[in-house]
Amino acid sequence: MNEKASLLDANSLITREPISGSSKVYIKSSFEHGVSVPMRRVDLTNGDSVTLYDTSGPYTDPKAEIDVTKGLAAGDRAAWITARGDTETYEGRQMLPEDNGLRGNAATGEVAYYEGLQRQPRRAKKGCNVSQMYYARQGIITPEMEYIAVRENMRREELKARYANAERDERLKGESWGANLPETVTPEFVRKEIAEGRAIIPANINHPEMEPMIIGRNFLVKVNANIGNSAVTSSIAEEVDKMVWAIRWGADTVMDLSTGQDIHNTRDWILRNSPVPIGTVPIYQALEKVGGVAEDLTWEIFRDTLIEQAEQGVSYFTLHAGVLLRYVHLTANRMTGIVSRGGSIMAKWCISHHKENFLYTHFEEICEIMQAYDVSFSLGDGLRPGSAADANDAAQLAELKTLGELTKIAWKYDVQVMVEGPGHVPMQLIKENMDLQLKYCDEAPFYTLGPLTTDIAPGYDHITSGIGAAMIGWFGCAMLCYVTPKEHLGLPDRDDVKTGLITYKLCAHAGDVAKGHPGARYWDDALSQARFEFRWQDQFNLGLDPDTARAYHDATLPNDSAKVAHFCSMCGPKFCSMKISADVRKYAEERGLDGSEALEQGMTEKSAEFRAGGSEIYVESEPEL
Amino acid sequence: MNEKASLLDANSLITREPISGSSKVYIKSSFEHGVSVPMRRVDLTNGDSVTLYDTSGPYTDPKAEIDVTKGLAAGDRAAWITARGDTETYEGRQMLPEDNGLRGNAATGEVAYYEGLQRQPRRAKKGCNVSQMYYARQGIITPEMEYIAVRENMRREELKARYANAERDERLKGESWGANLPETVTPEFVRKEIAEGRAIIPANINHPEMEPMIIGRNFLVKVNANIGNSAVTSSIAEEVDKMVWAIRWGADTVMDLSTGQDIHNTRDWILRNSPVPIGTVPIYQALEKVGGVAEDLTWEIFRDTLIEQAEQGVSYFTLHAGVLLRYVHLTANRMTGIVSRGGSIMAKWCISHHKENFLYTHFEEICEIMQAYDVSFSLGDGLRPGSAADANDAAQLAELKTLGELTKIAWKYDVQVMVEGPGHVPMQLIKENMDLQLKYCDEAPFYTLGPLTTDIAPGYDHITSGIGAAMIGWFGCAMLCYVTPKEHLGLPDRDDVKTGLITYKLCAHAGDVAKGHPGARYWDDALSQARFEFRWQDQFNLGLDPDTARAYHDATLPNDSAKVAHFCSMCGPKFCSMKISADVRKYAEERGLDGSEALEQGMTEKSAEFRAGGSEIYVESEPEL
Repeated sequence: MNEKASLLDANSLITREPISGSSKVYIKSSFEHGVSVPMRRVDLTNGDSVTLYDTSGPYTDPKAEIDVTKGLAAGDRAAWITARGDTETYEGRQMLPEDNGLRGNAATGEVAYYEGLQRQPRRAKKGCNVSQMYYARQGIITPEMEYIAVRENMRREELKARYANAERDERLKGESWGANLPETVTPEFVRKEIAEGRAIIPANINHPEMEPMIIGRNFLVKVNANIGNSAVTSSIAEEVDKMVWAIRWGADTVMDLSTGQDIHNTRDWILRNSPVPIGTVPIYQALEKVGGVAEDLTWEIFRDTLIEQAEQGVSYFTLHAGVLLRYVHLTANRMTGIVSRGGSIMAKWCISHHKENFLYTHFEEICEIMQAYDVSFSLGDGLRPGSAADANDAAQLAELKTLGELTKIAWKYDVQVMVEGPGHVPMQLIKENMDLQLKYCDEAPFYTLGPLTTDIAPGYDHITSGIGAAMIGWFGCAMLCYVTPKEHLGLPDRDDVKTGLITYKLCAHAGDVAKGHPGARYWDDALSQARFEFRWQDQFNLGLDPDTARAYHDATLPNDSAKVAHFCSMCGPKFCSMKISADVRKYAEERGLDGSEALEQGMTEKSAEFRAGGSEIYVESEPEL
Repeated sequence: MNEKASLLDANSLITREPISGSSKVYIKSSFEHGVSVPMRRVDLTNGDSVTLYDTSGPYTDPKAEIDVTKGLAAGDRAAWITARGDTETYEGRQMLPEDNGLRGNAATGEVAYYEGLQRQPRRAKKGCNVSQMYYARQGIITPEMEYIAVRENMRREELKARYANAERDERLKGESWGANLPETVTPEFVRKEIAEGRAIIPANINHPEMEPMIIGRNFLVKVNANIGNSAVTSSIAEEVDKMVWAIRWGADTVMDLSTGQDIHNTRDWILRNSPVPIGTVPIYQALEKVGGVAEDLTWEIFRDTLIEQAEQGVSYFTLHAGVLLRYVHLTANRMTGIVSRGGSIMAKWCISHHKENFLYTHFEEICEIMQAYDVSFSLGDGLRPGSAADANDAAQLAELKTLGELTKIAWKYDVQVMVEGPGHVPMQLIKENMDLQLKYCDEAPFYTLGPLTTDIAPGYDHITSGIGAAMIGWFGCAMLCYVTPKEHLGLPDRDDVKTGLITYKLCAHAGDVAKGHPGARYWDDALSQARFEFRWQDQFNLGLDPDTARAYHDATLPNDSAKVAHFCSMCGPKFCSMKISADVRKYAEERGLDGSEALEQGMTEKSAEFRAGGSEIYVESEPEL
């Protein structure tokens, strides 16, 4: 395989234009560090604008220079890291042939690919701890924390000024299930949440290209997208393109789950081009290094893999440290056994050696490595249910308790932790998952896959799982791992990645709205008002996917005149309830009537007048469509 | 327009083959009437079979003769109706030019299309009441009720024998929120539910082609599909095809929401070819008859329209009788006013006349008409919220209370009633909708559109609403009105109809599972077991949409050998957790170990042996793909 060609290929593959109807703005913080935070601004046809959270990075800024073969510029974060004076660059680990799964060349020691983009690695100076949790606990507000405060507020005061309404705000105040959602997020609030372990900032010091983000129950619900090649299919260029594509549609973090060959290089290219934190499951690469034989895995090989990936800049590691030897037998009578890849690998290792999981026995050593780079734990649920039948069973809940114990150990080292969750869970058991996780894991952020609420719809598991995702997001889950339509069936392509992301973004937002996240609902208001006022372009552009909304509208009414028409093809002009409703309101306004009382009065007195003056509820002359 | 050509066109458009991997079976009832109930049987590659509920009618039976230009055979139900001896045929209403919206020809009295398929209409003999509720209250178990009992049971004892497991059944017993779900549905149970108003059997005596079905909280959650042409687009042939397509993918009822011209004929063709109950919103046609001027609507025109449609065989009417004059002003300060078409028409009528809604003032007269044909009420929520901002507001809840009052009036006449619900409701307010509906409407079945849980995703509102639909289905909603991806943007095409239906079927089933509907979960078990055992064909065929599942799998692994491979392209052979998990189990079984205790023991003693004998977790020789 010619990797260079593949990289150039990625340059032509990636999508560079701004999201339709949006432009990139940079909001300067008024706090101590004065950080600059990119956001997405939608300019409306009525002169207003709406500012939205933006995960797409420089790719949607036409002024940014992008060359995938060189990687992104390091950004402000490089300076923040060096300014702290607690890190040092060093030689770093030597690359090995097996890093890319090329075991066949191990005899000659030949490494297939040297020209990586990786910068010289950096780590904590001896005796230093460089995790955001460490700083937070010292009372230090980092630029990363300030950045996040500005970012999470999303200029919500603009929308609030426009849409706040006492009756409505009270009626829709939400049910937070104990979440603490302040009116305005301050840097100090961010610091406190990190210090107390309720949120994490996955931010490896070797990933300075990254735009800081936070994962925690008291912030906006986040979405992760899984990408990665497998032994069977897909190329590196496709994966880099998928990453850019994923963040365009809202991925807050991306997990590179590559297996097979080129695993190191794929990750290198993804990392150097990614403005969002990258997560991995290091056991996948470790397994490649031992030729796929789980029993041949050793702590030493695994430890070396952790350092390899930490030096590259991975911000969180999924580690299945809770799959204990004594839990494996609990899966014997399950409908679908163990369905986590990492979980099944560790289970097989435990059984064949009849030894305890080395991730568990070496957990404190792992903490020491992770604090030196500020890699966060994503404690994997290796025993998660793979079917509704296995939901909330003894194996799953035993592991969850262990993950809670490990959380506390990590916190001793000031290492940030989130905890992974299911999987497949029917609706009535979802809340128990959230409640037990909060209890066992002392409110460490929960990060779930779905959960899928039924197993009968292969091909539609983005939806079976989206239902569960929206619910658990409402109940307090901090990040949702997307599921694509290809789940259980094949590797997602570009379209699948987008469908999975839009689905999960709407689920996350539905969760924010239901929790009563301040400001979340005003986005809905902005779009609803555009809909009611027949501002079609605004309705499209405010949506999660303007392109698809516009294409669907154009499928029946392609002409420009339809974009200002006071009806659509669903009901046609005669039956447009929005139009009739607007007519009723206009009638009141024209007569100086305002609000419900006045309208009632107006109706009483002037029904005859209303009837006389233009009473047709259809448009007098239909615009040509 | 040449309607005959259009009909022939429909004959070539409709899909006739069985659902992939399924065959039609007819289950003979062992109860009094010995009715025969069609179902869909999926034969599995391991020799088992799974019987599923089947809405697709004769179209998926290769032995059935179908000719759209002649309509379906009347079926057994024609005999049941005549055998009761309480109905009579009669001349019926004369067709008028305006029935098809052809007001231009009214001067000449010329009716555009005479060759309808409609049979001579039938109505209750004087002094008789032919509603299923009337029979039920007399203690009579009709063949329709018996049919439904057999149908709802779906041969669940077969799956139960295979998958029942005490630990699992207890853990997953569901939360029914007060629903009463018997282990087996008996004809007497159906009768009692109908008698007490908790369920309806929408079954106009002029629709003998129909296969009886039930809508109620203590039965399987049902799904409705809206079709219909609009003034802007679509032809009659397309609508007939859409109906056949909709029932293929699980529509339990279909609403014909046509507007514009050919409204009578479209309905005629849909009805005569439909094996599922058809619902309508009669005010749409009445409005066409007065040229689209809401104020010109009169009780007389509306009454005539009701009879016209009752004679054709419509089984339920959406009537916005709860849009009272005094409620209209409550919508004045809404974000999106009135978004129900029927609701806005009635509101405009009320305001301009400053009179009470004629559907409300003539409600008892309407009851008399409906009992003569056994048309059920679907009490429309004309003031439902059109945005999250308007959810559960004063207008919506005031109307709901009125719908509760009207329910009790209808029940005085033994007329069956269901009640329609929102709309747009954020997650935290969904349960209140369900609870208030049960309370205000004395447990009459609830029939909701979605609800949409956020407004920010035009183009994906099948998903924003599917979340709410699954939740409210769990909470007790009896029927879910599907939403397609085109909602708010345009008229759904064939693909949209299918996507909307599969989405809503999975939502309905997720609701059944969460409620603990006996047997519902075993369908998930059957598919999960097929998944775990790598029976790919069974996994596809047991899914709601076998074609899409198969196509997604084939996208990366098209060869037949992949259909028996013990992995898929998602993880590849090395990383297949299902395979590893199966290996662990096989290891135990080969040594005569069974269950968790034995496996634990086996692991303790024989870990070395396991390691020695074939420890690779990848497939030794990969099949050619």
